[in-house]
Amino acid sequence: MFADAAGAATLGTKIALRGGYIHQTFQGGYTYSPLGCRVLRNIERIIREEINAIDGQEILMPVVSGADLWIQSGRYDTVDVLAKFKGRGGADYVLNPTHEEVVVDFIKSVLETYRQLPFAVYQIQTKFRDELRARAGLIRTREFIMKDAYSFHVSQQDLEKYYARALDAYYKIFKRCGLKKVVHVLASSGDMGGSIAHEFQLISEIGEDTVYICDCGFGANKDSAGRGGICPKCGAKMRKERGIEVGNIFQLGDKYSKSMGLTYAAPDGARKHPVMGCYGIGIGRTLAAILEESADDNGPVWNMETAPFAAHIVALADKDVRVNDMAEKIYADLQAMGIETILDNRDARAGEKFADADLIAAPIRLILSPKNLDAGVIEAKYRLNDRDASQMKSSFAIDNCGREVNNAIKLLKGH
Amino acid sequence: MFADAAGAATLGTKIALRGGYIHQTFQGGYTYSPLGCRVLRNIERIIREEINAIDGQEILMPVVSGADLWIQSGRYDTVDVLAKFKGRGGADYVLNPTHEEVVVDFIKSVLETYRQLPFAVYQIQTKFRDELRARAGLIRTREFIMKDAYSFHVSQQDLEKYYARALDAYYKIFKRCGLKKVVHVLASSGDMGGSIAHEFQLISEIGEDTVYICDCGFGANKDSAGRGGICPKCGAKMRKERGIEVGNIFQLGDKYSKSMGLTYAAPDGARKHPVMGCYGIGIGRTLAAILEESADDNGPVWNMETAPFAAHIVALADKDVRVNDMAEKIYADLQAMGIETILDNRDARAGEKFADADLIAAPIRLILSPKNLDAGVIEAKYRLNDRDASQMKSSFAIDNCGREVNNAIKLLKGH
Repeated sequence: MFADAAGAATLGTKIALRGGYIHQTFQGGYTYSPLGCRVLRNIERIIREEINAIDGQEILMPVVSGADLWIQSGRYDTVDVLAKFKGRGGADYVLNPTHEEVVVDFIKSVLETYRQLPFAVYQIQTKFRDELRARAGLIRTREFIMKDAYSFHVSQQDLEKYYARALDAYYKIFKRCGLKKVVHVLASSGDMGGSIAHEFQLISEIGEDTVYICDCGFGANKDSAGRGGICPKCGAKMRKERGIEVGNIFQLGDKYSKSMGLTYAAPDGARKHPVMGCYGIGIGRTLAAILEESADDNGPVWNMETAPFAAHIVALADKDVRVNDMAEKIYADLQAMGIETILDNRDARAGEKFADADLIAAPIRLILSPKNLDAGVIEAKYRLNDRDASQMKSSFAIDNCGREVNNAIKLLKGH
Repeated sequence: MFADAAGAATLGTKIALRGGYIHQTFQGGYTYSPLGCRVLRNIERIIREEINAIDGQEILMPVVSGADLWIQSGRYDTVDVLAKFKGRGGADYVLNPTHEEVVVDFIKSVLETYRQLPFAVYQIQTKFRDELRARAGLIRTREFIMKDAYSFHVSQQDLEKYYARALDAYYKIFKRCGLKKVVHVLASSGDMGGSIAHEFQLISEIGEDTVYICDCGFGANKDSAGRGGICPKCGAKMRKERGIEVGNIFQLGDKYSKSMGLTYAAPDGARKHPVMGCYGIGIGRTLAAILEESADDNGPVWNMETAPFAAHIVALADKDVRVNDMAEKIYADLQAMGIETILDNRDARAGEKFADADLIAAPIRLILSPKNLDAGVIEAKYRLNDRDASQMKSSFAIDNCGREVNNAIKLLKGH
């Protein structure tokens, strides 16, 4: 859902709009339609499962906060994308573009002793950045949904252990979302003594970031790549690529715990500032990145974890009443089995139905026609990215359709 | 989580804060802790299931929108709680306190013909009201989470049919949340020729609304109650009660579809404005209402659908290593069965553990001690509201604990 460098809508943007996944409410702010919302919730589910698996605890912080927290951290006047407004009662508010201030204020109310450390909290919440210019599509929006996590530690060493777990979890998340070309690149120069950070970039021609990738496995963004594109690890020449940033992870040190006075009691009773990490994933961006990487002229290619529906029943009745009856029966059966299914029994041409099915892109498509009914089978078609459809069954027995669809789903989830 | 009329914190507020469910981020804005977020997500799940069951389709609209939509509807200057701000690029934005404008703008992009009607969309999203004064707790906050649904119809008659389904769904939702004293009351005077609306009010001493209830089943809020508290249905004297508004439903007519130019093609090709309904539930308020209705001095009483955990294992090791080993085994078993479980194996006094367990209020509590282990049983305690605990088993066989807990959960979900 990006415009290219010249501002033209890319294939992903066109498909997202043509398929009715999103609608622009204001420049830089989108409404997700029922179809788009299904994909969004699927991505959120994947993220929740993987962040829970690394002991993240879900919380929910407000979109708005008082200016006081940002004044405390020293960022009230330095973050240019911070939107500010005054309430009727005279209070100064901000729309949080990120939640370090808010989370530290919350953790101050719960952290007492080193025995509680380490821990990590995360939320899936809306944020607002007052960008001077928003691009078309979901890449640089003003309002966006993020998963942001924050971890708290007694030492830099302990932070680094968790940071490595988060890095692994991120690869699992993007893999489950069906993204193939995601790499992590160094995002600030560790050898300059600064703090470490990494970006997760989807390598893509239409990305707005420049990244340098070395065959040795090292990668860095433009600011951290060193001189002349020479790899600081092995000395080889690095490839220059374009990337879409879908996530980032930061080692924050005690910057926020110090400025905002977050402490815990160490074993000797001394008050200490915890060391923090923070970990973001743009959820709308991830949806957009999937489209940019996989969509073709006909529509998106979701996988079984992200697709808005697992199965799409196309009923081509051609005035044969048996077809719609059978389609409704199969629809009810699949729904009862917990399979997310959509039924197209509209009185419309086959071509129109297939074109719409391409835009919804359920991985499994079931085609019912009078001819198929006479043969006792349902024709099966697939919309797949990472697997050869020729290995899948090309028809299902009508009598055993639910079970056959379930088996196909299991097969496709294995990838 | 309310202050009473005098501004003092009520029992529900005290319990929510003492239990660490919420933390005040700014006056009128709260962070939900891991514990609070679990209850929130449970309430959201109940709402999603019941609104999906009346054919609601989930969407997600932005928190912010451009001023243009509110200028179009004519509400930009008339809604006093509308927070406004200017972006760096000069654009005028609002924080949506409700989403009629935004949803109509979205539906304009998808509605073409009468054949698509009726339909309903809903979202679970953050809203902001620039209240002059926020009360303590979750009753009158500035930022809050709502389920808001919008339905679209060809006629007033068709709207009324859906309105009745929504009303039923609301009772199911509040019942599943464990709320007992919820009534719906007329919220605007239908006999004045105006549009119909209803509020769902939890009858509660600490509520800030006044409602009139008649023995005949009729109820009305203060503005719609008629003269002298006489029931307009049966002529009897109505009871005056205090209520907490947890939801509301409105018949909007074509107010927004007309002012914002939303039309569809009627069968004869003419462009018509759909008739709309809207349907809100305050999610934080529902959580607060549960606390106000059920909490006692020791803590909340959740039911099996809303509780942050189904089971709470209290390990009283008393230096017997077998206890913590067994507690961890049972914890792992229950988790593997998909039962949300919390394990307290801290090195702390039994009294402290029980007090904390009261604040978390898992409906099933499993107590492991050396004595219990010797007897081969786990002591079971219950935190119940709508069922007599004496009907539940007071101990489980250690060897069969997972199955026995599962059976107890099934029993408790029946209520």
